[in-house]
Amino acid sequence: MKFLTGLKADNETFIGIVKEGQPDEVIDLNAAATYYDLEMPTVFLECLKSENFIETVQQILARLHDEEREAAYTLAREQIKIQAPIPRPNKNVFCVGKNYLDHAIELGSASDVLDVPMFFSKAPTAVIGTDEPIRIPTDVTSDIDYEGELAVVIGVGGKRIKAEDAYDHVFGYTLLNDVTARDLQSKHKQFLIGKSMDTSCPMGPVVIHKTSIPDPHDLVITTFVNDEVRQQSSTSKMIFSIPILIEELSKAMTLEPGDIIATGTPAGVGKGFDPPKYLKAGDTVTVEIKQIGQLSNPVLHDV
Amino acid sequence: MKFLTGLKADNETFIGIVKEGQPDEVIDLNAAATYYDLEMPTVFLECLKSENFIETVQQILARLHDEEREAAYTLAREQIKIQAPIPRPNKNVFCVGKNYLDHAIELGSASDVLDVPMFFSKAPTAVIGTDEPIRIPTDVTSDIDYEGELAVVIGVGGKRIKAEDAYDHVFGYTLLNDVTARDLQSKHKQFLIGKSMDTSCPMGPVVIHKTSIPDPHDLVITTFVNDEVRQQSSTSKMIFSIPILIEELSKAMTLEPGDIIATGTPAGVGKGFDPPKYLKAGDTVTVEIKQIGQLSNPVLHDV
Repeated sequence: MKFLTGLKADNETFIGIVKEGQPDEVIDLNAAATYYDLEMPTVFLECLKSENFIETVQQILARLHDEEREAAYTLAREQIKIQAPIPRPNKNVFCVGKNYLDHAIELGSASDVLDVPMFFSKAPTAVIGTDEPIRIPTDVTSDIDYEGELAVVIGVGGKRIKAEDAYDHVFGYTLLNDVTARDLQSKHKQFLIGKSMDTSCPMGPVVIHKTSIPDPHDLVITTFVNDEVRQQSSTSKMIFSIPILIEELSKAMTLEPGDIIATGTPAGVGKGFDPPKYLKAGDTVTVEIKQIGQLSNPVLHDV
Repeated sequence: MKFLTGLKADNETFIGIVKEGQPDEVIDLNAAATYYDLEMPTVFLECLKSENFIETVQQILARLHDEEREAAYTLAREQIKIQAPIPRPNKNVFCVGKNYLDHAIELGSASDVLDVPMFFSKAPTAVIGTDEPIRIPTDVTSDIDYEGELAVVIGVGGKRIKAEDAYDHVFGYTLLNDVTARDLQSKHKQFLIGKSMDTSCPMGPVVIHKTSIPDPHDLVITTFVNDEVRQQSSTSKMIFSIPILIEELSKAMTLEPGDIIATGTPAGVGKGFDPPKYLKAGDTVTVEIKQIGQLSNPVLHDV
């Protein structure tokens, strides 16, 4: 099950589900829910808070199928604009630094790999969806870099979550590009400011439900700049696994439905090249995990 | 003008204003607004987003005075429970590290004072109000420290705000205790996790409007643990002033109404003593700026 937040031609927002086996067709769940007199928020973050969201979706899909009404609620992908699945998170996005050894090595800081994860955050104002432009604020940075990542979306909140129970708290997964101003990141020492520029958190295009990903640590993740493969690795190479990240984050802090955890980036970022290959206006950067899709964003100058 | 978020005996939330010259009496602005058929959200964060909030408040106060109706909407402070002025911020709280030289020296890291502010954040789930307990999660930390701070509340959002225009974007000021697990802060290197424990962001008791504080850089700030003065300094000693903090934060990131910026702590934190004087169950920690009030929190064990 792949969920998306879409915008229809009339500018109405809706929760869509990509049709099984037909990736270019999307079912408008809100319209179908209305027809069947079922509750379904039009904001995905609210769906995540609702206990019976998945049951309601399954009920809708079964009835649409049985009554052959799918066509009535199906939109072609080109009819809609896909937004970030959670266009406005409720708090900063959680991120993990140096969670792939080869990335720590390319940054010359393998000795910095800690025995606990290094967490930082990105402001929620930074989130954009696929196809929306990453705008480089050339007045404050010239070193804009990409970081393709698998991101976890929390479904059930909690505190002191044990690693062995962690997947009970996961709703699903999405793609995230942890766009970073390398000069600001190093100048300000703490990462927040270099990670929180407007448009520096592309996310999406969909959130795939955990039942569709048997093992989130067996995914090939690739980042392209234009047609060039820059990053390619496997999520099996994370130093701290998703269960450990959730356990560590929730030891003293309550996690909530809709929280987003970007799990770190593998080697191949622009800064890793000599000379560095930073993003420039005219580029397109694309993060791909085949089971989830492609998150693709053009790069423009902001000023 | 001192605003607060209050809870009445019937568990109803309201926006209050402390009576001029009578600090133990609070006017229920929502009840008065209803009487005068004026719009007034019951959530302070929503008031901050409303363009004419201050005008509406002034209109209410003038009419109450002229019509001698103040008594009808006045509550004694002991009748209400004061909550954090913004119990649930829309994003993480912005914080500044090492913004007082004497504090950087006591931490042995004066050489780390940068030529730009060091920004990090606290999760919004950490916010509590005055009198609510700071709960030490003794299963993950034994080094819980206090940091008394002046915090800025943004009224008008914006991007690329110049220092000379910064106060146009300020709504007012509050007190904030940037409670920190020193062991987690240093172990995880990036500060987020050691700063985001549940109950680690006491805030309040009021937000004082900027018109009541002629110079936010001329305030004495004191932190007591029980009856002992631990921190006492002047906000004149900040390395990066409020206008510079706002300019730096907004260079590439949009600030929004209700954003909170904690401006850093002076010397005297527990870690600065030899041996360190960390918080323990049974303590009460109080941050005071006389013009704003006292933010006072008992300390308990969480488990």
